[in-house]
Amino acid sequence: MIRAPSDLLDSTVPLADHDLTRLTACAAARLLQRRELSAQDLLTACLERIQRREPEVLAWRQYDAERAMAHARQLDNGPLRGPLHGLPLGVKDLFDTRDFPSGYGSPIYQRHQPVNDAAAVALCREAGAVVVGKTVTTEFATFTPGPTRNPHNRAHTPGGSSSGSAAAVAAHMVPLALGTQTAASVIRPAAYCGIVGFKPSFGLIPRAGIKSLSESLDTVGGFGRSVEDVALLTSVLANAPQWRQLPQDAKPRVGVCRTPSWDSASPAAQQAFEATVQRLIKAGVRVVDVTLTDAVCALTEVHNEVMCAEAFKALSDERLNHPDQLSERLKTMLERGSRVTFEDSLRHRAQVASARHQLGRGFVDYDLLLTPSACGEAEQGLERTGDPLFSRIWSLLGLPSLNLPVGFGPQGLPLGVQLIGPVMSDTATLAFCAWIERSLDA
Amino acid sequence: MIRAPSDLLDSTVPLADHDLTRLTACAAARLLQRRELSAQDLLTACLERIQRREPEVLAWRQYDAERAMAHARQLDNGPLRGPLHGLPLGVKDLFDTRDFPSGYGSPIYQRHQPVNDAAAVALCREAGAVVVGKTVTTEFATFTPGPTRNPHNRAHTPGGSSSGSAAAVAAHMVPLALGTQTAASVIRPAAYCGIVGFKPSFGLIPRAGIKSLSESLDTVGGFGRSVEDVALLTSVLANAPQWRQLPQDAKPRVGVCRTPSWDSASPAAQQAFEATVQRLIKAGVRVVDVTLTDAVCALTEVHNEVMCAEAFKALSDERLNHPDQLSERLKTMLERGSRVTFEDSLRHRAQVASARHQLGRGFVDYDLLLTPSACGEAEQGLERTGDPLFSRIWSLLGLPSLNLPVGFGPQGLPLGVQLIGPVMSDTATLAFCAWIERSLDA
Repeated sequence: MIRAPSDLLDSTVPLADHDLTRLTACAAARLLQRRELSAQDLLTACLERIQRREPEVLAWRQYDAERAMAHARQLDNGPLRGPLHGLPLGVKDLFDTRDFPSGYGSPIYQRHQPVNDAAAVALCREAGAVVVGKTVTTEFATFTPGPTRNPHNRAHTPGGSSSGSAAAVAAHMVPLALGTQTAASVIRPAAYCGIVGFKPSFGLIPRAGIKSLSESLDTVGGFGRSVEDVALLTSVLANAPQWRQLPQDAKPRVGVCRTPSWDSASPAAQQAFEATVQRLIKAGVRVVDVTLTDAVCALTEVHNEVMCAEAFKALSDERLNHPDQLSERLKTMLERGSRVTFEDSLRHRAQVASARHQLGRGFVDYDLLLTPSACGEAEQGLERTGDPLFSRIWSLLGLPSLNLPVGFGPQGLPLGVQLIGPVMSDTATLAFCAWIERSLDA
Repeated sequence: MIRAPSDLLDSTVPLADHDLTRLTACAAARLLQRRELSAQDLLTACLERIQRREPEVLAWRQYDAERAMAHARQLDNGPLRGPLHGLPLGVKDLFDTRDFPSGYGSPIYQRHQPVNDAAAVALCREAGAVVVGKTVTTEFATFTPGPTRNPHNRAHTPGGSSSGSAAAVAAHMVPLALGTQTAASVIRPAAYCGIVGFKPSFGLIPRAGIKSLSESLDTVGGFGRSVEDVALLTSVLANAPQWRQLPQDAKPRVGVCRTPSWDSASPAAQQAFEATVQRLIKAGVRVVDVTLTDAVCALTEVHNEVMCAEAFKALSDERLNHPDQLSERLKTMLERGSRVTFEDSLRHRAQVASARHQLGRGFVDYDLLLTPSACGEAEQGLERTGDPLFSRIWSLLGLPSLNLPVGFGPQGLPLGVQLIGPVMSDTATLAFCAWIERSLDA
C-alpha cells in the first residue's frame, strides 16, 4: 500500500530530514497548526515531487509553483486560517478557479478562464488550503480520457474521471485533492491509484461553479492517503467539524455484498475482497452476507439512463454549438440520453425511491456495506478509464462511499474495497471506515 | 385580468390589424407553426411594445432588437425548429447567455460575459425561441431589488426575484419568459404582475449555467399569460411533449388551504381567495378544507434556514473576494446561513422528509392545494420585493406550483391564487390548473 507510512514522525530525526510528502494531510496539518512545519517547506517538498514525477504521470492540466509559494508565504506570515492551513491541494479541472483556466477536459474550453472560484474551492481556500493547480479530468467528467497515467505503472490508466487528482495524491505530489463523482469518478481512480477516495452523501457539498454533467448524481468528493485525511478535506466543504474528531471505537457491523456484478470482478479483485472479509472477521467484526434485491440490482442500468438523459440536457450548449468538438464516446452517451422520455425519467425516480426504501431496511442489520471498488486492477492502456460498474448503484442512491486500498494485484497495481453507509450518515460512516482502516493496517 | 383576451382571432380581420402582442404564446405558436404568422412580424410587434413600455417598466437589463430580428429572419427563412419556433423570449439575468452579459443582479458581475448558454436557454433556442434579452433579477435572486417597476403601477414593486421576466410578460413585451424560484421568485412576481407563473417539480429542469443560490431549492420556472403557455415553455425544458396536449376534462378536487400564514394575507387577498373558492364550488369542483400539520407548518421557517445556509456556501467566492459589493440584506442572510450547523442541516432534511410523507397522504383526498399566492397586492415602493411567505413550504417540498390571476385588489393591482400539486405530478397538475383557469374565465 502506498499510504503514508505513519502519522508518527521519529522525533529524534529533524523534520527537515523527513520526506514531507510522505506525511498524511492530518499529520502535516497538526504540525502546520502548531507552526512546527511551515507551509512553504511542505509546498517545496510537494513541488520537488511534482517536478520529479509529473513528466511521467501527467496529473496536472496546469500548476503554478510561484503563485502557490506566494500563498504559502502569506499563510506562514499571517494568522492561522483554518483546518486546511498550509495544505497543498489539487483541484480537478471540472471546478471553476479564478486564477487558473478551467477546461473541463474538453477542447471547447481550452482557453476558458472563469471569473470566480467554485464554492468548494473557495471554501478550501477560506480554510487555508494552497491550491497548487488544476488536475486532469476526462471530457466533462465522462469516459474520454485525458493524458494522465497511473503512478504505479505508466502503461495503465489511473481511472477516471478524477484522473489527475487521484494520480497526484497517489504520487505524493499533494496530500489532498478535490474530485467529483457522477458514476464512479472518485471510487474507481482512488482504487486504481491505491489511495483513499471519499464521496459524501449526495447534497452535502455545494456544487456551485462545477461544470454540470448530471444534476441528480454529480457529487464533490475528496482524495487523500487515509480516511482521516479525506474526512479533514470534506469536513470543510460540508461544514462538519465533527468529521475531524472521529470516535476511535466505532467498530462496524459489515454487510458483505458481492453485488450482481461479482462475475465481472477479476480473480485478484475477488481474492482481495474475500481476504478483506476474513481479516475483518479476525478483527472481531460481525459480518453478514447481503444479497441485493432485484429492485436495487436494477439500478445499475437505471443509473446509466439517468446519467445519459441528464447529460443530454446539461450539455445542451455544447452539443448545439460545438458538436464537432465532442468525442464520439460522449456523442453516443448524449444520443442515448436524447431517447430517454419524460415518462422514463419519472419511472427512474420511482425505481430509486423504491430501492432506497428496500436498502434502508438493510442498514438496520449492518452499518456499512462492503463491495469491490472496481472490476480489478487498473486496465492496461490509456484509451479507457475502466468500468464504473461497482459504484453506479451507490451513486444513484446518493450514499456516502469510500475506497480503501487493500493491497496489490498480480500486475503490481492496487486493489481496493468500497465501503458504503446509509444516506446522510457520513459522520458514522467515516468513523466506521477509519476503524476498518486501522484494523486492516494492524 | 390582463390575460390575452382570446386565443381565437377574428378571422374576418387581417392578422396585421391585430395587436400581435395580445396573442397568447400558444395562439402565436399555432400561427407560426402554420407559417400564417412570421417570426419577424411577431417580434416587430413585441419590440414596438418594448420601446413604448420599457422606459417606465425597466424590465430589461439588456435586449438586442437587431440580433433578435436577425434570428427571427433566419427562422422565417428556414425549417420549423420546434415547439417554440419564432416565439420571443425573455431570460432572467440569472441564466448564462453566450450573447448577452450575465450580471446575476450583482455589481460584482456587471461586465461578466459567459461563454455559453445555460442549458435551459440552449434548449429554448433549440426549440426555436428568439431570445430578446436578459430581464432584471434581484441580487443573486435574493431580496435586494433591481430597477423594475410593476407594469400596472410604476410606484409598486413587480415582486422578485424574477422581477423583469414577470413584468415583461405582463406588459406584453414578450409572450414568454424564463425565471427561477428559490423561495417564491416565480409565484410572487407572477401574482403581483397578474400573469401565470409555473414552478415545476424540483429536479425536472436542468440548472446548468444558472447562478447557484440554494442547491436544494433553486428551480427553473416559466412565465406566460395562460396555463397552456407556461406548459408550452416548460415542456421544452422538461422534455415533456405531453404538457402541450393537456386533457380538457381534468376537473380537480381541490384542497382549500388557508395556511398558517392566513393572517398575513390582506383582506383583499382573503376575499379574492374566498371568492375563488366559491366560484370553484359553483363550477362543480369538490373542495375540502385542509389544515396543515405542525410538521408542514414548521417548514416556513426551515425553508429560510436551508436557503440561508446553502447561499452562504454557494456564494463563498463572492463573500470572500467581494464582501464590499454585497448588499447589507444579502450579508445578513449569509451571516444567518453561517450559523447553521451540520446537525441543523441533517435535522432540516429529516423535517422535510417527514412533512413530505404527511402531505403525501393528503393528496389522496384532493388533486390540488389552493392557497393565496402572496400576502396581497404588490407593495408600494421599490425598496422591497414583497414577502415569499406563501411559497416557502412548497418550494422546500419541491412541489409543482402555479400562480393563477384571479382579479384585482382595491389598489388596482392584480391578485393571484397558488395551485399546488403532488411532486412529479406536473402533467396532471398542469391539466387541473388549465381546467380551473377555464372555469374561472367562464
